[in-house]
Amino acid sequence: MGSSTRKANHLHKVDIYDTTLRDGSQQEGISLTVDDKLRVARQLDSLGVQFIEGGWPGANPKDAAFFARARSELRLHTAKLVAFGSTRRANGQVTSDPNLHALITSGVSDVCIVAKAWDYHVIHALRTSLEEALAMVRESVAFLVEHGCNVFLDAEHFFDGFKDNPTFALSVLEVAASSGASTLVLCDTNGGTLPTEIPSILAKVKDQVAVDLGVHFHNDSGCAVANSLIAVDLGASQVQGCLNGYGERTGNANLIPIIAALSLKQGITTIPTENIELLTSTARHIAEITNLPVPPQTPYVGASAFTHKAGLHVSAIARRSDAYEHIDPSLVGNHTRFVVSEMAGRQTLIIKAAELGLELTDDATTSLLQRLKDLEHQGYHFEVADGSLELLMRQALGWQQSYFAVESYRVATDDYRGSGLLTEATVKIRIGQDRVIATAEGNGPVHALDQALRKALQPTYPMLASMGLDDFKVRVLDTSRGTDAVVRVLIDFSDIDAQWTTTGVSTNIIEASFSALTEGFVLALLRTNPT
Amino acid sequence: MGSSTRKANHLHKVDIYDTTLRDGSQQEGISLTVDDKLRVARQLDSLGVQFIEGGWPGANPKDAAFFARARSELRLHTAKLVAFGSTRRANGQVTSDPNLHALITSGVSDVCIVAKAWDYHVIHALRTSLEEALAMVRESVAFLVEHGCNVFLDAEHFFDGFKDNPTFALSVLEVAASSGASTLVLCDTNGGTLPTEIPSILAKVKDQVAVDLGVHFHNDSGCAVANSLIAVDLGASQVQGCLNGYGERTGNANLIPIIAALSLKQGITTIPTENIELLTSTARHIAEITNLPVPPQTPYVGASAFTHKAGLHVSAIARRSDAYEHIDPSLVGNHTRFVVSEMAGRQTLIIKAAELGLELTDDATTSLLQRLKDLEHQGYHFEVADGSLELLMRQALGWQQSYFAVESYRVATDDYRGSGLLTEATVKIRIGQDRVIATAEGNGPVHALDQALRKALQPTYPMLASMGLDDFKVRVLDTSRGTDAVVRVLIDFSDIDAQWTTTGVSTNIIEASFSALTEGFVLALLRTNPT
Repeated sequence: MGSSTRKANHLHKVDIYDTTLRDGSQQEGISLTVDDKLRVARQLDSLGVQFIEGGWPGANPKDAAFFARARSELRLHTAKLVAFGSTRRANGQVTSDPNLHALITSGVSDVCIVAKAWDYHVIHALRTSLEEALAMVRESVAFLVEHGCNVFLDAEHFFDGFKDNPTFALSVLEVAASSGASTLVLCDTNGGTLPTEIPSILAKVKDQVAVDLGVHFHNDSGCAVANSLIAVDLGASQVQGCLNGYGERTGNANLIPIIAALSLKQGITTIPTENIELLTSTARHIAEITNLPVPPQTPYVGASAFTHKAGLHVSAIARRSDAYEHIDPSLVGNHTRFVVSEMAGRQTLIIKAAELGLELTDDATTSLLQRLKDLEHQGYHFEVADGSLELLMRQALGWQQSYFAVESYRVATDDYRGSGLLTEATVKIRIGQDRVIATAEGNGPVHALDQALRKALQPTYPMLASMGLDDFKVRVLDTSRGTDAVVRVLIDFSDIDAQWTTTGVSTNIIEASFSALTEGFVLALLRTNPT
Repeated sequence: MGSSTRKANHLHKVDIYDTTLRDGSQQEGISLTVDDKLRVARQLDSLGVQFIEGGWPGANPKDAAFFARARSELRLHTAKLVAFGSTRRANGQVTSDPNLHALITSGVSDVCIVAKAWDYHVIHALRTSLEEALAMVRESVAFLVEHGCNVFLDAEHFFDGFKDNPTFALSVLEVAASSGASTLVLCDTNGGTLPTEIPSILAKVKDQVAVDLGVHFHNDSGCAVANSLIAVDLGASQVQGCLNGYGERTGNANLIPIIAALSLKQGITTIPTENIELLTSTARHIAEITNLPVPPQTPYVGASAFTHKAGLHVSAIARRSDAYEHIDPSLVGNHTRFVVSEMAGRQTLIIKAAELGLELTDDATTSLLQRLKDLEHQGYHFEVADGSLELLMRQALGWQQSYFAVESYRVATDDYRGSGLLTEATVKIRIGQDRVIATAEGNGPVHALDQALRKALQPTYPMLASMGLDDFKVRVLDTSRGTDAVVRVLIDFSDIDAQWTTTGVSTNIIEASFSALTEGFVLALLRTNPT
């Protein structure tokens, strides 16, 4: 691996602490049921993280229910479940503090409590004195340790607090350490810390306290992953974050690139080595549960993370991928993809065709390249429309579809106020010697055309019943021309064991859609009735 | 600002070099027309970046067309346009090299050429000797300098190359510098470099070469922003990257968090200070052109970047936001949002109404908030549809439009193979006591409806002749339902002195479009015939 380094580091192992179920679920748009939380926990355990922060049983009834069910239903193999809470209330007693009580009765022995490390927040949010704030830390940690807990201390706003009042911020750490906390976690709660600020702050922390350090970064500066890696390099032995970088605002540190960099590039053990290749599937599985798709550009695990567009590189990548990819994508369970565009060279097309089981001749490649260039100039875009590309490749080899021929179609939408909207489509097609006319209604013009085509074709081709339309996208290309603009339509289709995407381009959205629709039908028929 | 630092740095200014139009457009899913590229360049110039890499005129006909049009059409105020290319061919002559010729004739005097700095790529991709590779750099840089160019050298694969063969990688830099290159750009082409690796490499580079250094990071390790900031801290004076972090695979370094961190947190000048607040609108404007929405979690400029979910913080944030937000969001043109708070919503609406000259009563605000909530649940989105929002505000105050009433409409598209496609729309409307029926043809259903509405209304309202439709956008919302999905349409209108945007949402694209169209007509009439 050309770009990997095996630098000497005094650490051999870093604990990965996932807080998707607590901090991650603060993300706008995420709402996990208790069942969802159990599912996420099982995924994290299978991946092999050391700690799973399950929630805040003292503050949130759903989290209390999660811990109750986890006790009987969740059999973790690798990970330890952690209950999150806060120090006792200001001027209260640890023995009667409901929040500490919830931790002790949560059924887990690893607990993480948050303490304010920024004097401003003590004075203005807690509205108490700095002395009382330190007493809250001292007594709460000691109480939990007495009750047999392994205590992690989240020093909230540590970095900002250190910049304002380093003495107080460090006192919070010292008090927690002397009271028995096993790990002190430096939190960048507002996410504003820059990578260049970390070395001097960590040096001062290490001068003052001798227990294990963890870090917890938010991504507001876009540096959460790098900040975590820098902190590990400086001796932090626990990294808190979330799978897929979930979290409030801009998210928490994404654990995936942290695990991958430490394990694959720095020789530091994180999750079990044999599980690194589960990163991609775990990211996508958890994304299914949160119902937030993994963005294609996501490092290591995104669909585009190892996708190559530029034509000139393709043959070279095939020869020695480590000169063009920072890691072997299979190490994280991802794979190299080549997409075809106007910049594509001959080699890209030949490799892509081979993926589809087609062998492109030299002549066919030349004519296909020209055809692609012309079509892309019109606004076509084949990078994602693999189905339409397949048809072009087959056509370049002299193939023509003979399943059906469209003679004409029409689609009309009528709105009579009061009696509602009606869209109706009629297609006239030939199937061999037969002429078929079918009319169907739909929720809109494309739906009506889809229904009419099915009605016309299904008697001859019953296998079309198992084909579904999964997605329909419209892009207006030349947006400066208003409703007279060119539109590009993409339609995703699937049947039981395949997926394909087609595209159509026209100034008329109906024409663009109908073209993509009919291509999708042809591809479905190709899969079951090869010609 | 609690979290900001004003650390001493020997640099006072860093040049921002945007390569959205070249490297950024390598991103899967991005396909920019020449018009799009001109629009992006104008946005970048308004933002005030120092350099805009416009494309590779020697390799791509579209980029050549861009430079040709840029010469006559693009009047840049701040930015310099840069043409990208490569060194001469192996064993070729600079005087007859088509690629270098394209740079000289591109019409710009700032050029950036790429040279391989990893010996592996010289030997296996260029298939030439290391000596010839250095000669290519030497002669190409000198040739361009002789022709009056300011030459930037992109040292491709510099970091990986340095790790494999530091002598060769440094020789590339030395040769470029001694031949007259003004800036040597260290590229992390595969994106695998970790932040902890940069200090030692940059120290060695600075020992060897004395000219200005730039950096160009890709985000494959999730560290491109941090790596760029670290390199600036170590003396790099040019940062290459893309607005919104566009780029192949996982993208290039996102320039937005880099500009924001340097300018707002480190006291280093990047773009003009008064333009920092344009970051959010520029990010979103360019995202409209690429048609890739800015992900809500994007640092600084995402819709969720300053969104607070936890209820207990809201009043505290209102008191002193800098204790809860790493920067004041207004500094980058973004704003704080409270997901649960109704109070924030009321105030926003009252301010927005005042902008439109409307005074919202308490009752109207309450009913409007409820209406907005219901509509946003259906998929409406009023952040950009200010026109539709204005109509809702007026309705909340008891207003009803009386210009015209739609009785019914119909639109049909017929395709008779051979004789072409025809779309025709009929609208039946009432204007006062009159009933008007008008039929018109168009390039597609929305165009036909627009033409029919004009035909019906213009005899009574001749001022509609000056109203134009500037943009038409379609987004499919519930993409899991195929052609049965909910679509949202946005239409931009303008007349001589105003612009407005309306929106419509329906499972039927015709209905969504017609609703947005009629609202646009009402707003045009409101502007000239207030009721």
